[in-house]
Amino acid sequence: MSKTYERLEKYFKEVSAIAGARSLLGWDQETMMPPKGAKARAEQISVLSTMIHRKVVEVQVGDWISAAAEENLSETQAANVKAWKRDYEKATKLPESLVRELSKQTSLAQQDWARARQESSFSVFSPSLENIVLLCQQKAKCLGFESEPYDALLDTYEAHMTTKRFAQFADEVKAEVVPLFAAIQKSKVKPDSSFLQQTYPKAEQEKACRLIMKTFGLDLDACRLDTSTHPFCGGPATNDVRITTRYDEKELFQALYGVAHEAGHALYEQGFEEEYEGTPMAEAISLGIHESQSRLWENLVGRSKAFVHFFLPQLQTLFPNQLSQVKEEAFYAALNKVEASPIRVEADELTYNLHIVLRFELERALIADEMKVADLPHEWNARMKNYLGITPKNDAEGVLQDIHWSFGGFGYFPTYMLGNIYGSQMWKKIEQDIPSLKTDITAETLSTLLSWLRKNVHRRGRQYFAADLVENISGEPLSAKFFTSYLKEKFGALYEV
Amino acid sequence: MSKTYERLEKYFKEVSAIAGARSLLGWDQETMMPPKGAKARAEQISVLSTMIHRKVVEVQVGDWISAAAEENLSETQAANVKAWKRDYEKATKLPESLVRELSKQTSLAQQDWARARQESSFSVFSPSLENIVLLCQQKAKCLGFESEPYDALLDTYEAHMTTKRFAQFADEVKAEVVPLFAAIQKSKVKPDSSFLQQTYPKAEQEKACRLIMKTFGLDLDACRLDTSTHPFCGGPATNDVRITTRYDEKELFQALYGVAHEAGHALYEQGFEEEYEGTPMAEAISLGIHESQSRLWENLVGRSKAFVHFFLPQLQTLFPNQLSQVKEEAFYAALNKVEASPIRVEADELTYNLHIVLRFELERALIADEMKVADLPHEWNARMKNYLGITPKNDAEGVLQDIHWSFGGFGYFPTYMLGNIYGSQMWKKIEQDIPSLKTDITAETLSTLLSWLRKNVHRRGRQYFAADLVENISGEPLSAKFFTSYLKEKFGALYEV
Repeated sequence: MSKTYERLEKYFKEVSAIAGARSLLGWDQETMMPPKGAKARAEQISVLSTMIHRKVVEVQVGDWISAAAEENLSETQAANVKAWKRDYEKATKLPESLVRELSKQTSLAQQDWARARQESSFSVFSPSLENIVLLCQQKAKCLGFESEPYDALLDTYEAHMTTKRFAQFADEVKAEVVPLFAAIQKSKVKPDSSFLQQTYPKAEQEKACRLIMKTFGLDLDACRLDTSTHPFCGGPATNDVRITTRYDEKELFQALYGVAHEAGHALYEQGFEEEYEGTPMAEAISLGIHESQSRLWENLVGRSKAFVHFFLPQLQTLFPNQLSQVKEEAFYAALNKVEASPIRVEADELTYNLHIVLRFELERALIADEMKVADLPHEWNARMKNYLGITPKNDAEGVLQDIHWSFGGFGYFPTYMLGNIYGSQMWKKIEQDIPSLKTDITAETLSTLLSWLRKNVHRRGRQYFAADLVENISGEPLSAKFFTSYLKEKFGALYEV
Repeated sequence: MSKTYERLEKYFKEVSAIAGARSLLGWDQETMMPPKGAKARAEQISVLSTMIHRKVVEVQVGDWISAAAEENLSETQAANVKAWKRDYEKATKLPESLVRELSKQTSLAQQDWARARQESSFSVFSPSLENIVLLCQQKAKCLGFESEPYDALLDTYEAHMTTKRFAQFADEVKAEVVPLFAAIQKSKVKPDSSFLQQTYPKAEQEKACRLIMKTFGLDLDACRLDTSTHPFCGGPATNDVRITTRYDEKELFQALYGVAHEAGHALYEQGFEEEYEGTPMAEAISLGIHESQSRLWENLVGRSKAFVHFFLPQLQTLFPNQLSQVKEEAFYAALNKVEASPIRVEADELTYNLHIVLRFELERALIADEMKVADLPHEWNARMKNYLGITPKNDAEGVLQDIHWSFGGFGYFPTYMLGNIYGSQMWKKIEQDIPSLKTDITAETLSTLLSWLRKNVHRRGRQYFAADLVENISGEPLSAKFFTSYLKEKFGALYEV
């Protein structure tokens, strides 16, 4: 008998349906909505969010969870109850007054941030940011933590990850990547990417994007590709996933590898069992695991020599004038060109990680009251100089570039690098389990890889925490060494260092 | 003091935000959703619908309405409370068991109807339809009625309209249109529409559609035009209205006048005061008034000689090869060609009304238990013969053509013809109030008309019932005579009868 479980499942499936509707409102806002629809849309999203929150924190939910946990449950059902319990406890720990205040202050802060960025003046944003830091410290206190308040914030994006553990990864990555990058800068190898300085018509770029989606194995009857200012993956259901990209006719890789990235996210979303729709068994474990899927497809597959071997001839058919003379080696080198950039979202696969380490160090110190908001620009620029050897032209290009802090997203940035770490550790096992992997990629028989991910990652829903999943898969403790080895091997070979 | 009123307004604005989200789910389903998204979408729409219903019938809502009605309210606030009261009373009269049963049976019936239509076999659908008729009779009983059960059903689509009153209109229209149509069939005037038998590329058709939207005065920053199988007007907010059309390169008028029709609906939706968003003062009075706006713009404006004078040169620029030799008179005659069709949605402006009269007579008799479901095909065909002089080839082309009965929409069809009646009576007053009307249409200065409609119709929200609004505007009792006179004058002149 699992009568309470069934009631609970029905209840949360309703919550999930509301969340699906909210997701569509968000997607439409970025892709289809006429400009004047913004005001009503904000209200609709806010009403649905409040309803979802109220439903999760209902007193009866706590009772049902306790009762259901006593019932005779299947493994899947038990995993669902565990996840619901976690969500319920997290949500009920935050007093509604704090949730409201955070929502109000972050809404104001985002306006200040946008203005500060426009005027390239950190002081326009700093009073708001001080406010947000205080509120996030309060939030951490309410949620509770073992060692330091940042633990609680990190845990909201990456369940069960601790600051200490992530800091070790950050140190390891920094210790390997900083000297590797310095060596690359001194290398005599200078990839020639001049073929990129041409016009690549949007219509053909879009064809190439759709080819990537098809090749990676997305179910095209269960997704859409559209255009938005900031590329993202969203959508209202497992069988209705929406990805976006943006096109620049002077820039070939932006749209294509944006789609490769979002397609990785979308494969994860499509990979849940449809029968579990609306339950944690059909939900992503964490942002980090989500990112492991996007980066695995974008970088480990999409930027590999094997994929270039398959992909370049296809691109040459679409862009004969621009690419027919380009050789595989040159294309691969241009695609993987390492170059210091002050802007995170424009960084290459290698230096990207230093952007994350920098942000993590700063936000950890802020939340621990070991750094003042006023010192941020200085600390930011000092680290940029140390790690990447460059100095941002101004605050807009430096400390003001990301939206995350303005919405109170302290603890979010680490998930981007965790995606690389998780993905590389999985990849090691994938290479063992699929001996034909490289040939499969070359020959576009990527279904072996997708099947592996379906079985070992996607279909498991929220059954395990991220680190446990990766450790179960690989049989080794979670470590950054797989990722740093991969970087050293790949970029060492390319730049002969 | 109006403390309870404010609570009530806040509450219903939330309900309206949920309804806006549901509306977007519906629009997306018809325009953007990938095929496999259908199952989850049905669930999302169902959950949101249930939530809306539950919120409307909450016991406290009844108490708040009673308390608010005692407060010192503005005219607008009083109108809102009156409308909420009406909605609350209607919703609470239906037991949840009946709502569930109707939802279940109509869902099954729609599948049977689709199959019956495909197989062109009424008997596949008739058992379901018998069920639906019984449930609708029960629904009428729960809602209550003065003279006959059909009153209650009609009232759900057209508040305050009675069967007896509509039957008089139907009889009048029939009495005028049947002989007029017979005379037209015998007329020696035979409009030559052979120029329509050409290819009209979709891209240019779409440009023409957008020109109509702009000319009619739609705010293009507050709406969208997309493609769907069945054209409709929807959208999540006053400043976010979505219309659709469908294109057939062998058929010029379908897309264009579909857009003219939906643009009329959209102008109504955009015409509400934004400050009243989420309250009855920013809601349509009834389906009939909505249809009055769509038909007014489609027919009284769009199919008029004055509009053809403006529009044909624009079309000739878009389609020089197809239209440069076509004269205004010939275009006008082809656009207004009268021809008996067994299919309602393909009917011309004149004979369309006979399709409605036929359906009304049949559904009124069914609900009154004066006709058996089994007799429908025979009764349908007999009336088609009597009114239009034609016999459908089969059930699919006859009694099975419309979806309405399968979803339990008894009482819906009359609103289509009421739109014509309301619109014509308004038009009489518009012609008096705007002496330059015809010249304005010719010269594309349609803003005089739109301003008139904004002030006299759109901005009034649900302040009045439909007939009262039309009577207030025109200073005369609601009557079908304005409509029949218009038809006789227009088609009498065109066909010289």
